[in-house]
Amino acid sequence: MKRLELFGVQGIGEVHAGARLGQIICDGCLSQAIELADNDLLVVAQKIVSKAEGRTVRLDEVKPSERARQLAQELDKDPALVEVILGESRKVIRTGGRALIVETHHGFVCANAGVDQSNVGLGQVALLPRDPDRSARQIRDEIQRLTGKSVGVIISDSFGRAWRIGTVDVAVGIAGMKAIKDERGSQDHHGYELKAAVAAVADEVAAAAELVMGKRDGVPVVIVRGYQLEKKEDGSVRELLRPEAEDLFR
Amino acid sequence: MKRLELFGVQGIGEVHAGARLGQIICDGCLSQAIELADNDLLVVAQKIVSKAEGRTVRLDEVKPSERARQLAQELDKDPALVEVILGESRKVIRTGGRALIVETHHGFVCANAGVDQSNVGLGQVALLPRDPDRSARQIRDEIQRLTGKSVGVIISDSFGRAWRIGTVDVAVGIAGMKAIKDERGSQDHHGYELKAAVAAVADEVAAAAELVMGKRDGVPVVIVRGYQLEKKEDGSVRELLRPEAEDLFR
Repeated sequence: MKRLELFGVQGIGEVHAGARLGQIICDGCLSQAIELADNDLLVVAQKIVSKAEGRTVRLDEVKPSERARQLAQELDKDPALVEVILGESRKVIRTGGRALIVETHHGFVCANAGVDQSNVGLGQVALLPRDPDRSARQIRDEIQRLTGKSVGVIISDSFGRAWRIGTVDVAVGIAGMKAIKDERGSQDHHGYELKAAVAAVADEVAAAAELVMGKRDGVPVVIVRGYQLEKKEDGSVRELLRPEAEDLFR
Repeated sequence: MKRLELFGVQGIGEVHAGARLGQIICDGCLSQAIELADNDLLVVAQKIVSKAEGRTVRLDEVKPSERARQLAQELDKDPALVEVILGESRKVIRTGGRALIVETHHGFVCANAGVDQSNVGLGQVALLPRDPDRSARQIRDEIQRLTGKSVGVIISDSFGRAWRIGTVDVAVGIAGMKAIKDERGSQDHHGYELKAAVAAVADEVAAAAELVMGKRDGVPVVIVRGYQLEKKEDGSVRELLRPEAEDLFR
């Protein structure tokens, strides 16, 4: 039977700057008697990665630029928050209502450059990791060193979407795996050659993990077991980023 | 431990027009010794729903309009296929490269109106169900009648996205559940009031199920067990459709 299991790693508690996440995750697994296995996928919430890397900012220490003040007024947002968002962005894609959709320095198109005020402490915001693939690789390497197991790692965040209501979690960084599953050129049972069969499996794994994480449940790490992941030593979330020239919605 | 399990229902085989899917799914579960439980979620691939409802078209029986011919030439597509796509659409949103992004009569923004040539037989295409929420309700009701169990049902399809490469599966119809999880107004552990916390859980469940379905594995039904779904008798995929007036990308 094709089967997938997801379980949440609980009891990780508050993560502070400088924390070694690989170690923390292994400790969490141990305390729940979870033994990591080769080919397990670990989905790690961006928020704890950002905290461990010290990627948090106190809004009262931010001096908003004139542009940030103007945008903040238009969008009914905190000028200091807008300043932080602009600092994380290479381009503003759309504004409207209270929404500020940007392209981040990494190339993600998302609301507020992924800058987020929840679960980080009042008056503070968390930024996305500077190089989320590297963050994922560090976690993967530390787990390999501690347990001898070769896992895939996905760092996830909740992104809004065009056209549809609600966020879904997506991958913002990966390590040890391919982000997509490309079946173009293969045939279905009727002999039809598949033309559009590229699935964003890293995003689907992140979405699945969100069902276990929730937003308020204190489960920042989820183990996904049973997925036949395609290993790739230098896998990168960049596989998932549509180049601007091929994008009809930028 | 927070835990989620997904298992694929195999051996369903080719589905023909007029098939009773609830019965077929129950038979499939029985043959794998899966006992359905209250609160299980069933994710059913759109393709078998469309086939059961006779929503397939032979392209050689389609007479393309002048508009379809023109668009087909621009986009290097089959004129008959474009004619079918236009018939399923209330509006063309973008064209470019070989892509034809439309808004369907249901209100979905997606490529090709969900019209799809794979896994349906050479020279044929499958259309989305006419009323996918109703299709989901029929499956749910039939399962309830046959097993006495109250399950949630999601009909899923693979949709492309703006900005990111690859498809993810999303819900195109639901029954017996809420499509979103809305935690706005509740507080995180630091006392911060969550402002953007609306998760498209039906889409996340569909995405998770795709990891088990695959495109070529003959697993059109996946059971998701362990998710604390919010029941809603008149749940609808319309909860997930962003009104055009609030959409920055239409």
